[in-house]
Amino acid sequence: MQKPWEGRFKEATDKFVESFTQSVDFDKELAPWDIEQSMAHVKTLLSAGLLSQEEAQSLLQGLQELQKEVLQGSFEFRRELEDVHMNVEAELISRLGEVGGKLHTARSRNDQVVTDERLYVKDGVREVCRLLGEVRRRLVELAEESIDILLPAYTHLQRAQPIRLAHYLLAYREMFLEDERRLLQAYRSADALALGSGAVAGVDFPLDRFYTAELLRFNRLCRNSVQATADRDYLLDLLYACAVCGMHLSRLAEDLILWSTEEFGFVELPDRLCTGSSIMPQKKNPDLLELIRGKAGRLYGNLVSLLTVLKALPTAYNRDLQEDKEPVFDSLKTLKGSLEGMSLVLEGIQFREDRMKSASGGLALMTDLANYLVLKGLPFRQAHRLVGSITAYLLERGKKPEELSLEELRRFSELFEEDALRLLDPQVSADRKGTYGGTAKEEVLRRLQVAKREEGIP
Amino acid sequence: MQKPWEGRFKEATDKFVESFTQSVDFDKELAPWDIEQSMAHVKTLLSAGLLSQEEAQSLLQGLQELQKEVLQGSFEFRRELEDVHMNVEAELISRLGEVGGKLHTARSRNDQVVTDERLYVKDGVREVCRLLGEVRRRLVELAEESIDILLPAYTHLQRAQPIRLAHYLLAYREMFLEDERRLLQAYRSADALALGSGAVAGVDFPLDRFYTAELLRFNRLCRNSVQATADRDYLLDLLYACAVCGMHLSRLAEDLILWSTEEFGFVELPDRLCTGSSIMPQKKNPDLLELIRGKAGRLYGNLVSLLTVLKALPTAYNRDLQEDKEPVFDSLKTLKGSLEGMSLVLEGIQFREDRMKSASGGLALMTDLANYLVLKGLPFRQAHRLVGSITAYLLERGKKPEELSLEELRRFSELFEEDALRLLDPQVSADRKGTYGGTAKEEVLRRLQVAKREEGIP
Amino acid sequence: MQKPWEGRFKEATDKFVESFTQSVDFDKELAPWDIEQSMAHVKTLLSAGLLSQEEAQSLLQGLQELQKEVLQGSFEFRRELEDVHMNVEAELISRLGEVGGKLHTARSRNDQVVTDERLYVKDGVREVCRLLGEVRRRLVELAEESIDILLPAYTHLQRAQPIRLAHYLLAYREMFLEDERRLLQAYRSADALALGSGAVAGVDFPLDRFYTAELLRFNRLCRNSVQATADRDYLLDLLYACAVCGMHLSRLAEDLILWSTEEFGFVELPDRLCTGSSIMPQKKNPDLLELIRGKAGRLYGNLVSLLTVLKALPTAYNRDLQEDKEPVFDSLKTLKGSLEGMSLVLEGIQFREDRMKSASGGLALMTDLANYLVLKGLPFRQAHRLVGSITAYLLERGKKPEELSLEELRRFSELFEEDALRLLDPQVSADRKGTYGGTAKEEVLRRLQVAKREEGIP
Amino acid sequence: MQKPWEGRFKEATDKFVESFTQSVDFDKELAPWDIEQSMAHVKTLLSAGLLSQEEAQSLLQGLQELQKEVLQGSFEFRRELEDVHMNVEAELISRLGEVGGKLHTARSRNDQVVTDERLYVKDGVREVCRLLGEVRRRLVELAEESIDILLPAYTHLQRAQPIRLAHYLLAYREMFLEDERRLLQAYRSADALALGSGAVAGVDFPLDRFYTAELLRFNRLCRNSVQATADRDYLLDLLYACAVCGMHLSRLAEDLILWSTEEFGFVELPDRLCTGSSIMPQKKNPDLLELIRGKAGRLYGNLVSLLTVLKALPTAYNRDLQEDKEPVFDSLKTLKGSLEGMSLVLEGIQFREDRMKSASGGLALMTDLANYLVLKGLPFRQAHRLVGSITAYLLERGKKPEELSLEELRRFSELFEEDALRLLDPQVSADRKGTYGGTAKEEVLRRLQVAKREEGIP
Repeated sequence: MQKPWEGRFKEATDKFVESFTQSVDFDKELAPWDIEQSMAHVKTLLSAGLLSQEEAQSLLQGLQELQKEVLQGSFEFRRELEDVHMNVEAELISRLGEVGGKLHTARSRNDQVVTDERLYVKDGVREVCRLLGEVRRRLVELAEESIDILLPAYTHLQRAQPIRLAHYLLAYREMFLEDERRLLQAYRSADALALGSGAVAGVDFPLDRFYTAELLRFNRLCRNSVQATADRDYLLDLLYACAVCGMHLSRLAEDLILWSTEEFGFVELPDRLCTGSSIMPQKKNPDLLELIRGKAGRLYGNLVSLLTVLKALPTAYNRDLQEDKEPVFDSLKTLKGSLEGMSLVLEGIQFREDRMKSASGGLALMTDLANYLVLKGLPFRQAHRLVGSITAYLLERGKKPEELSLEELRRFSELFEEDALRLLDPQVSADRKGTYGGTAKEEVLRRLQVAKREEGIP
Repeated sequence: MQKPWEGRFKEATDKFVESFTQSVDFDKELAPWDIEQSMAHVKTLLSAGLLSQEEAQSLLQGLQELQKEVLQGSFEFRRELEDVHMNVEAELISRLGEVGGKLHTARSRNDQVVTDERLYVKDGVREVCRLLGEVRRRLVELAEESIDILLPAYTHLQRAQPIRLAHYLLAYREMFLEDERRLLQAYRSADALALGSGAVAGVDFPLDRFYTAELLRFNRLCRNSVQATADRDYLLDLLYACAVCGMHLSRLAEDLILWSTEEFGFVELPDRLCTGSSIMPQKKNPDLLELIRGKAGRLYGNLVSLLTVLKALPTAYNRDLQEDKEPVFDSLKTLKGSLEGMSLVLEGIQFREDRMKSASGGLALMTDLANYLVLKGLPFRQAHRLVGSITAYLLERGKKPEELSLEELRRFSELFEEDALRLLDPQVSADRKGTYGGTAKEEVLRRLQVAKREEGIP
Repeated sequence: MQKPWEGRFKEATDKFVESFTQSVDFDKELAPWDIEQSMAHVKTLLSAGLLSQEEAQSLLQGLQELQKEVLQGSFEFRRELEDVHMNVEAELISRLGEVGGKLHTARSRNDQVVTDERLYVKDGVREVCRLLGEVRRRLVELAEESIDILLPAYTHLQRAQPIRLAHYLLAYREMFLEDERRLLQAYRSADALALGSGAVAGVDFPLDRFYTAELLRFNRLCRNSVQATADRDYLLDLLYACAVCGMHLSRLAEDLILWSTEEFGFVELPDRLCTGSSIMPQKKNPDLLELIRGKAGRLYGNLVSLLTVLKALPTAYNRDLQEDKEPVFDSLKTLKGSLEGMSLVLEGIQFREDRMKSASGGLALMTDLANYLVLKGLPFRQAHRLVGSITAYLLERGKKPEELSLEELRRFSELFEEDALRLLDPQVSADRKGTYGGTAKEEVLRRLQVAKREEGIP
Repeated sequence: MQKPWEGRFKEATDKFVESFTQSVDFDKELAPWDIEQSMAHVKTLLSAGLLSQEEAQSLLQGLQELQKEVLQGSFEFRRELEDVHMNVEAELISRLGEVGGKLHTARSRNDQVVTDERLYVKDGVREVCRLLGEVRRRLVELAEESIDILLPAYTHLQRAQPIRLAHYLLAYREMFLEDERRLLQAYRSADALALGSGAVAGVDFPLDRFYTAELLRFNRLCRNSVQATADRDYLLDLLYACAVCGMHLSRLAEDLILWSTEEFGFVELPDRLCTGSSIMPQKKNPDLLELIRGKAGRLYGNLVSLLTVLKALPTAYNRDLQEDKEPVFDSLKTLKGSLEGMSLVLEGIQFREDRMKSASGGLALMTDLANYLVLKGLPFRQAHRLVGSITAYLLERGKKPEELSLEELRRFSELFEEDALRLLDPQVSADRKGTYGGTAKEEVLRRLQVAKREEGIP
């Protein structure tokens, strides 16, 4: 197999080197975008007078055929041709003859691969955002369905205060909304045409790069050919966005795994989303959620991987950059899977309202007592200490706050009156948190309306 | 020392636990912002009728005094008070008496610390952006000064093609511009008021959070109290932006370190920016650049550190989150230092034009020959191979391309004519790269004009 | 302030550069080891005839005085002297005059700093191992005390099978034993004398490095001066060992945090180890454990930080390597704190035997039923499926396995006989796991004996 | 397709869940070891009386057949069977009938997968160590061949002092020797039998685990069934060892890439190990070395990935742990490739002795002058400063030290005599570094002899 660059070389490439340095095993994933790019490149060459109408026609037709084969999976990639670019070019030459050799005019693999990746990332982000939107919409729907369910919010994994389940669900919706913002930022980073930057210095020919950008639907051009071929920021932005989203998913998964324990018993997952044990017949495991949680690992690892490659790398293109692809392919695939999995969970999950409710009272209401005293004029710090003593009193006697009599309360402070007892109800407690962003029903309903509007839910 | 929360506890806190869990050793850095926040909180409590005019007045005055002492460095922080918040509150109570105990009304450390950090990040980003802008402007000025200097662009650290130094410098300016975009994104993430979220569920009192936001110059409110206290996205965004900027700096530093070797000899650093060896009297080392390169390590480490803390962390606040501060303080400080150092380098650096020029000719011009043939109608792939053979011919004879005669050229292809020889000049080569983003003088000057305008350079 | 290397320089060092590149702010932590090293160096120089008896005497006395001041904290470090080494040398010269200038004979900061660090790491590891040993011994003691406590082992955070608490505790003891192995490996990596390697090439003078090694209690010599000054493996080994130990601690902490929730209720932490909330009077939070869990973040970050610094760093010494110190100081300090904290937890923790016991029966016993059938000759896979059906039967009826009658069992398989019912007891279940490493009392006692012997517990 | 655990389940597994949670796509790589393990398990079951001779015979024969098909690549794995273990078992049952269902007696996938991985790691380490040994031996051979070649050692990438190339090469051999130590540590971590630990609690049947260990050539047993199924230290140790070795390779690669630049010109790589450019006909790029350097990225990423998965993971087995495999497979494959590539480089590389030699003189000799003065009695610090001034003098005049006359020298110090001039020769300089580990020929030859002995080179 002839190498396209072998003119200067006196020895054939070592077989191991060929296999170690080839990237076609994984960059063939870029083939559809590579061919799309080549078609735009042909049109640009034509417009610059570097190809005749006939030549362009022939090339475009050849490329279209290859595209079809690639999409059908019938195109055969050959490792000795190094990468997806040379595979496409070599096949084109073998089919079309000499004219195929004109495709690489005014182009280097250095600007070509970046252009492929940028197209790929843009499409990948679109798909991830679609799946992320589904998760968010499902959270909003669940929130609407569960507006009257109370559960304890936890801090330090200790019951803190009663909140509405809807409030909890909308908290994750907020985080996933930020994830979309980060993903779209990666999209915008990627949305610049690199083609026309050549190997590093730009190209010798009068290409109309704005025309190419239009053909490939890029919003702007890379403004500097050195930066365009040396830089991988748009991939970092993507890997970072995926890592953070994966982290959010790992936290939600952790909560749901906890909630599906026998001990919490807040949720029940449908059998179809669980798997069993090879040895313990009773087991029904939330494997799906565990994997979603664990996959934060590879998302973090992929980010570290590319950051490491780029650290102190001399300008401009170095072959080290070939290592940019697998982490990106993997992070996109992983995140898509995790999002799809989380959607399924949110569709199938059953909340056990009774268990949640019964856990949301008790000591989780003590802050309300303290705030009661504040409204009676006691400085908060004193109120806090005083209610701390009531707590100690309850713990000693194994008593619940709901069981306190007014008389008992008044032993601690004469500020307590009849209405204090009414506070000792999770629902009352929740509904007192009525400021913007709080867990009161009225306020959660307001946030819910906004969320529905933002998500386009009627 | 009394703990503010000790009412419920029957034992004093263990001394080791006190020292291990305290954060005041480092979070005292937040004190100015913590006090600023408390002043806004007092005004909000006043407006909600939770403080009388007199009480508010007294608290504000007390806080102002503390602020003064903090800024002067005379405020004494005590570890047994756990953190910056409790230090400020305790001091206030000890000075003002009972009214001091009203400060923490309708507030939890969970929303308070986030508000401090958000204020801190916003100010930190502003300062980093200022220093980053200086680096960018210096790059633009240097580019303008060096518009006629040529050097070889390297790919694979092999001389690739001649480019203008200005073109190289503007490439880094592009990357640093993207860094600003990432930093401002972190700013926007941070720019939301968390106060009013309470411990997790919101607050019981009718606070006007929009008023607080206005006082503290936040652009929007955190919309969900659970998310507001559980989430640390705005810190991740910052750590990520710092890591990427540090990576860019590490690459620029690597180039400049290479260029200041005896072997490259492209630049000379002034003595004042270098240090010597404790043992080798002749050494003049680019330590400043080496440290800038090395500091990518801690910037990456800080990002990994917080990502790790957040992985699978149950909702909402957990004490693990206390680990969010040191990485952020360190990354901001580190990046500021690296940027300031790079500015100094770019101010003092001398480019050795002769050495750069003489390195930019030779084989780096071969692509131009290939492109010449393309313009004569030869398919690029054939032209490439043919010029590869010329290269082999030159290497065998130890000859430079500039020394080729037309006759020799024509032995390889009859398409070569007299004008081909004119190509063998780095300046001609560079100036042929005239498409958008290329290295031709005219085009670089155009980019330079845009850059000057964007940087506000007259 | 004169720089020791300024002979070759024509400008004073820039103030910012001085401050950015100095390391004395943190490497002063190495001072005691630096001075110890210098004393050994003086003796070696004396033995090589490079110092007279008098000179050596004077230097040793001077160093002793400095050491005293360093240990008392009265030595004043000056930033403009760059690092701990130059601070010590400069002070010595200022006190002793000319002879002080002989200290740096046949030594470079490049071999000096590595020697300091190696001494520091060795002492640090010793201390960490002592604290780790305490944790392990406490686990063993707890195991002995709790040999009759049963709890459910969890897989997928679902109750799996009953085990002995002692068995659980000894599992962590195994992991912490492996951590000691890793730490000692770091110790052995560090245990080689670098001094005598000079700046990179070795030294010109006939130093007896074996003598120096003996004085400083190094077990061997670095065998190659280039490697000795370029390499930081011994620090990576330490950072890695700390990271893994921190990971184990994070898992144990996670379990204990879960167990101390209201929902699990398996353990009670003493008040002295918990802290409260600034706002919620009832809260008693396991902050200590949460911080231990969270500190995995910085331990991971420190490892990534140094790995990043070293990636693709040219041979040999580069100033980037100055970034090796803070991660190491921080990881040692962090791990010591986490271990000390975990010791306290294991001393104060109360296990709630009743709650554990009552959670360890029920469906967690179903595997025993399947195994019963296997012993009756049914292939395991069929037995598993059959008992799966019994599980489904129980779940439908909301029945516990202990409530099954023989008759009911025999509806599923006639292989069941009277003795099957006896299996439905957590203790019977646990004690059936009698193979090596299993949870049967007899076997756990055997492992416990081995553990006590290994830990030197009588 | 029936799931082996479906008895308890009322719904079929969701198709997406099946595909997302299956691991057979990658864990099929473990198949040979899985079957080997099953054969040992059958023998152990037989010895425990849990299988009859006939049953065991039938199972062993069935497994042998499957092994053959696996090794030939003809075994067909099915995703709906989740993982390699269930694929093997299901196929066995389909071929052998009921007896196949006895294979999983007294075994869980939790102890099975760990046993597979441990076997896999042991074999993987053996192979990596073989390749690493080749690299080391090649370094030793090269060192022997190049004993008389001098080059400048660099610190701060500035020429520091002349050293022997052999000394440089042996420095990397030292590092790679430490890598072997780390890899063997991973081997020892892995070398413990997990089988017999069951799902978490041990097994109900009287298995002779020592017999199994002997059959599978494990050196010891996992001593605690909880630890055995929860822990992944042996994988971390491997990923860490690979990361550090990859770091060393990245540094050596960086040096060689620098040395193969036009500017350094210290080495020439054979054409067969280089690749060309798709656009620049003159390019001959050290892609192989660049990839070796870049692959540090994925090796670091894989380590971070698994560390992340394990952070705060509840005890014992969780499905997150399925994420442990791909990083391990990838790191082993990557490191093998990088080592094989480095071996090829070290076989084909040509050192350009003249260029190295001519770079090793000049100012790199100034330390020798300072040391000369020390031997004349001048305190080193003064000598250093004085020679610093000579350096400044030379730089001003653009003179080389070799061009200094005695007279000029004496203008700086009267201590200089005729023999001082003899020092100004790289070879003299190098050979003066004669202490243990220094670069003097005699000493390097001594180290070389040791190295040859250690590597078994005659």
